[in-house]
Amino acid sequence: MPRSPRPAPGPLIPTASARGTLRPASEAAITGGLWAARRAVNAAVSVPDGYERLTEAGNFHNLRLAAGTTTGAYVNNLPFLDSDVYKWLEAVAWQLGDPATDPNEAARLTERVDEVTGLLADAQDDNGYLQSYYQVVRPDRRWAELDWGHELYCAGHLIQAAVAHVRTTGRTGLLDIARRFADHIDSVFGTGEGRLDGVCGHPEIETALVELYRCTGERRYLDLAGWFIDRRGHGLLPAGGFGPRYWQDHTPVREADAVTGHAVRQLYLLAGVADVHAETGEAELLIAAERLWEEMAATRTYLTGGIGSHHTDEAFGDPYELPSERAYTETCAAIASVMFSWRLLLATGRARYADHMERVLFNGFLSGVSLDGAHYSYVNPLQVREGHVAGGGDRGAFRTRWFHCACCPPNVMRLLASLPHYLAAADGAGLTLHQYATGAYAVDDVAGSGARAAVEVTTDYPWDGRIRVAVTETPDAEWTLTLRVPAWAAGAWRASAAGEPVAADAAEDGWLRVRRRWRRGETLDLDLDLAPRLTAPPARADALRGCLAIERGPLVYCAERADHPEGTVIDDLRIDPAAPLGERREPGLLGGIVTVRASGAALAPRDAGDWWPYPAAGTGRAGAPAAADITAVPYHLWGHRTQAAMRVWLPALGADEGPAANGAAR
Amino acid sequence: MPRSPRPAPGPLIPTASARGTLRPASEAAITGGLWAARRAVNAAVSVPDGYERLTEAGNFHNLRLAAGTTTGAYVNNLPFLDSDVYKWLEAVAWQLGDPATDPNEAARLTERVDEVTGLLADAQDDNGYLQSYYQVVRPDRRWAELDWGHELYCAGHLIQAAVAHVRTTGRTGLLDIARRFADHIDSVFGTGEGRLDGVCGHPEIETALVELYRCTGERRYLDLAGWFIDRRGHGLLPAGGFGPRYWQDHTPVREADAVTGHAVRQLYLLAGVADVHAETGEAELLIAAERLWEEMAATRTYLTGGIGSHHTDEAFGDPYELPSERAYTETCAAIASVMFSWRLLLATGRARYADHMERVLFNGFLSGVSLDGAHYSYVNPLQVREGHVAGGGDRGAFRTRWFHCACCPPNVMRLLASLPHYLAAADGAGLTLHQYATGAYAVDDVAGSGARAAVEVTTDYPWDGRIRVAVTETPDAEWTLTLRVPAWAAGAWRASAAGEPVAADAAEDGWLRVRRRWRRGETLDLDLDLAPRLTAPPARADALRGCLAIERGPLVYCAERADHPEGTVIDDLRIDPAAPLGERREPGLLGGIVTVRASGAALAPRDAGDWWPYPAAGTGRAGAPAAADITAVPYHLWGHRTQAAMRVWLPALGADEGPAANGAAR
Repeated sequence: MPRSPRPAPGPLIPTASARGTLRPASEAAITGGLWAARRAVNAAVSVPDGYERLTEAGNFHNLRLAAGTTTGAYVNNLPFLDSDVYKWLEAVAWQLGDPATDPNEAARLTERVDEVTGLLADAQDDNGYLQSYYQVVRPDRRWAELDWGHELYCAGHLIQAAVAHVRTTGRTGLLDIARRFADHIDSVFGTGEGRLDGVCGHPEIETALVELYRCTGERRYLDLAGWFIDRRGHGLLPAGGFGPRYWQDHTPVREADAVTGHAVRQLYLLAGVADVHAETGEAELLIAAERLWEEMAATRTYLTGGIGSHHTDEAFGDPYELPSERAYTETCAAIASVMFSWRLLLATGRARYADHMERVLFNGFLSGVSLDGAHYSYVNPLQVREGHVAGGGDRGAFRTRWFHCACCPPNVMRLLASLPHYLAAADGAGLTLHQYATGAYAVDDVAGSGARAAVEVTTDYPWDGRIRVAVTETPDAEWTLTLRVPAWAAGAWRASAAGEPVAADAAEDGWLRVRRRWRRGETLDLDLDLAPRLTAPPARADALRGCLAIERGPLVYCAERADHPEGTVIDDLRIDPAAPLGERREPGLLGGIVTVRASGAALAPRDAGDWWPYPAAGTGRAGAPAAADITAVPYHLWGHRTQAAMRVWLPALGADEGPAANGAAR
Repeated sequence: MPRSPRPAPGPLIPTASARGTLRPASEAAITGGLWAARRAVNAAVSVPDGYERLTEAGNFHNLRLAAGTTTGAYVNNLPFLDSDVYKWLEAVAWQLGDPATDPNEAARLTERVDEVTGLLADAQDDNGYLQSYYQVVRPDRRWAELDWGHELYCAGHLIQAAVAHVRTTGRTGLLDIARRFADHIDSVFGTGEGRLDGVCGHPEIETALVELYRCTGERRYLDLAGWFIDRRGHGLLPAGGFGPRYWQDHTPVREADAVTGHAVRQLYLLAGVADVHAETGEAELLIAAERLWEEMAATRTYLTGGIGSHHTDEAFGDPYELPSERAYTETCAAIASVMFSWRLLLATGRARYADHMERVLFNGFLSGVSLDGAHYSYVNPLQVREGHVAGGGDRGAFRTRWFHCACCPPNVMRLLASLPHYLAAADGAGLTLHQYATGAYAVDDVAGSGARAAVEVTTDYPWDGRIRVAVTETPDAEWTLTLRVPAWAAGAWRASAAGEPVAADAAEDGWLRVRRRWRRGETLDLDLDLAPRLTAPPARADALRGCLAIERGPLVYCAERADHPEGTVIDDLRIDPAAPLGERREPGLLGGIVTVRASGAALAPRDAGDWWPYPAAGTGRAGAPAAADITAVPYHLWGHRTQAAMRVWLPALGADEGPAANGAAR
């Protein structure tokens, strides 16, 4: 356990007594590259636009109804609309903590926060209760519909916003409101006479209460978080249409052996479990969280890091049930998965959690928001078929402006706004960079020296594999600079420290650790081989058999209609696994990307009148494929040029023909 | 067009002036074999049990509320509960027309019909309106919620039940009620001042009104059916959460080029389209219906004949979107598909429609009801994974007693009760047997002779491929006896007529036609080769690539846990396509079946700790498979012994390993 330099403002600032192998760095700023560009758009477009969208969607109107300062009908039929406001407020708070935020914009955002804080104060009941839906629409049903009411869920997001605002501005107006609600909750729920023995249908309060404990020092918030975790899994919620697994109420988390049900619910719960472990040290919680993470990663995670196979209940499927075409892979679930993996990384220091964060961030998360910062996707499929017809509602394949259920957009905003905080960490021996982005990172009291170590990272990652880490501040003592070697780069990297080559066997368990008496200006240079590569599916993933995917560094690629000649049917492309892959830097395309070229073929069209598609084995009727080139672009940028066919997994040439017929068959 | 012998009582009795290549036979009775056994259970268990289930589920109670003869709350929140009663009544009516029905049981059923008819008469409003939900729960919203209200849908099922009851008993009590409702509808809907220009969110009224026209001779019912078809596709319904394609309101049916949306809605509509064509002769309707049928069969139909890939909206997916594990393939959709294909068969005489009926009947339909006649499935997946966890609600993978939305059980009952009617037909030249079941079939006025031709069929089909058709009545004139040669048996059959071999090239377009001056006692013997065979998926079906399915005759087979040694993981089985298939008759198993044996292997278990499932191409980490035998049973009987893993499509040995890595990859 490292000592306790104060981390930079951000989510998850553990107390001094918290357990954990890593803790967030004392300084973290992204100043260039892909994430800087995306964060600039988030600050300039998404966050300001969020206010407009929330206004238009009626979220503020509903709170004004609760405050009694306007009249009219409650807008929308969802009970958790306040949470969209809170997630947006949290994003604003992190934005206010970012020195790169334009001062005029910061002043505007501060006005917004003050305005909304005033609105929330007006809306809050005398006893601390605050949820516009149950204040306006169903006042007689407060705390009576824990399954779908989302009251504790909304409270959790209010708390997170308030904690963020205190951490970045020191101002407590929002925190006062959040604490009053939390205190009310603490007076309502619990074991014993007159208390409500129940849990929320949607976890979120757990992780939020731990943050409130960290922010206020009030132990009862941590205790209440632990109590909610302990009470879940005992059937306190009604079974509901999707069964108790939907809200993880079928078995206590300590005993669960697989992630189940609604993906966001499951991972928000597990984030809370990791948080309670961090602050209480209870080993059993970490063991359960790691066991469930591994089961999720090994059997229920898409190549993009996306999770959730079912549209109907936004839920995990069975093991290896990973259809590309009907992947649900909600943007919020990707965000939840980053939050969960990050907590396990901090708790254990295991590189696999950082590897996974990187995969999700660059693929299944980033696909959820457009380059222009004004369009979002709820679902993030790995394939859109030729002939795809979008249904109605929020869950179409293509990005859209806003949603009836607008959980994802402000969730994207708050993660991007706080992203620097997720990239670097203090460990007992020095500074760990587990994600790569041009910027400045520092830890106070490095390796117990009492002094600060700081570095500047320069890289064009993920387009280029060269990462230069220059020491800008250092004590006159030995400390360790630790860089992650992603699993996909194992055996395919070079490094030099202060100009001297680092031995190829120096990396261990995914970490390259260089301990020395660092001098200011010295560099640690890591060069990851980003040659495009082909990835195979697991043998048990029925939806992917016979296919290959193109990856390059941390990026998953996809083939899109826009890069192929008129008339190309993307689903009919077949990749030749024996042909070399090429790459090309395309500065003018999609903000500047590297495309990957592969060789292959295209199936001949189906014969008209061939009405029954299932032939006898060995008599495949597809015509001879014609040679075709395949161009692939980063998955996270799909759907920007055309709303047309796309696929990540490309069938390999020959995989359709199938095995020859057997002796007995005709 | 054949002349117009009166067909036996059953659904779809065309008028004398109707178009069509075939018309239902004048007599059709199933007396032995698989269908006789299933129909006996339907008569002895399912239909009587239906009354009890409807009572328990509150359907009759709700009608009593509408009649004002009881008090209490409306049970269930669905608006179409009356339709369950009507489909059950229709099944009862067909049962009453079956000479095999036990007289005591028939008396009991007659009492039930009288009781329910009285209840409906009491519930019906003076103006003819009848739907308990809008009479009791939302009387102010009649005809105001056509999208989800299902009022015309319920009216359609009432009409079908009434027509069935008249045809089998000659009694008109139910018909009087149905006509009053139909007349009310005819007075409400239509073009012009004061009329409601709208269509029902769920088609069904169209086919029913054509039947009512046939039954009463009132042309305006046929006109109204045509009007509803014409008005659909013009956006008269609100878009709704699933978009206008969900209820086929996006484009007029004459212009549609693909089946879309809710599968049952689409096919009930198309059944009505075929019916209106039959009675009006409008060619464009038939052209559209055949075009849509072909698109459905070629790109959106499972091997079992099941349709509907999406759980969320019970809808067709994109072309070739046919995931086994998440197949929806609702039992009602299979039934609708039989009804639709049968209508196209009668209209055109094309054998492909009969082939398809057979596939659906023996597989995707029959899987929907258990051998005991008391358990039903709503969805009929082609795979249940190891580790599958059933969600809550109606749509679990395994059969259950009854449903909250109980559309499927009475639909199964009415199809089984009327099944003989679907098997044989009069054509201009004689008698066509397009489905095979032991029984007696006849046409009056055969080939214009003025006399009757009758045959007796003896077969143990689908277990045995020998079908003997013995002539029991015949005029002293030439006529043609026509038997279908299923597409899967093309080139693999023998036949003899009156003891003389029939030439191997005598079958044409799926029909074996033998024209002669038949003598009483002569036989036409057809012997279809039922050797088990391996079937391949279409190249474009991503979910099935690298897999093979076992079929035998008309039956699709599946591998189930129950037939394999303890510890076998069904998903890990791999079939060796080069090894011969064996078969074994098992009289004691599942009512007497033929099992199929294949050779293959089983994957080694996943390594513990192998957390990321996507390896570099060419480095597949699955351990060496161990040899394993595979036993397959008919798909329609799956899930009777264990509620455990099952799959139709078996990965071929070697298909997981995938192609070798390319040059550029590491």
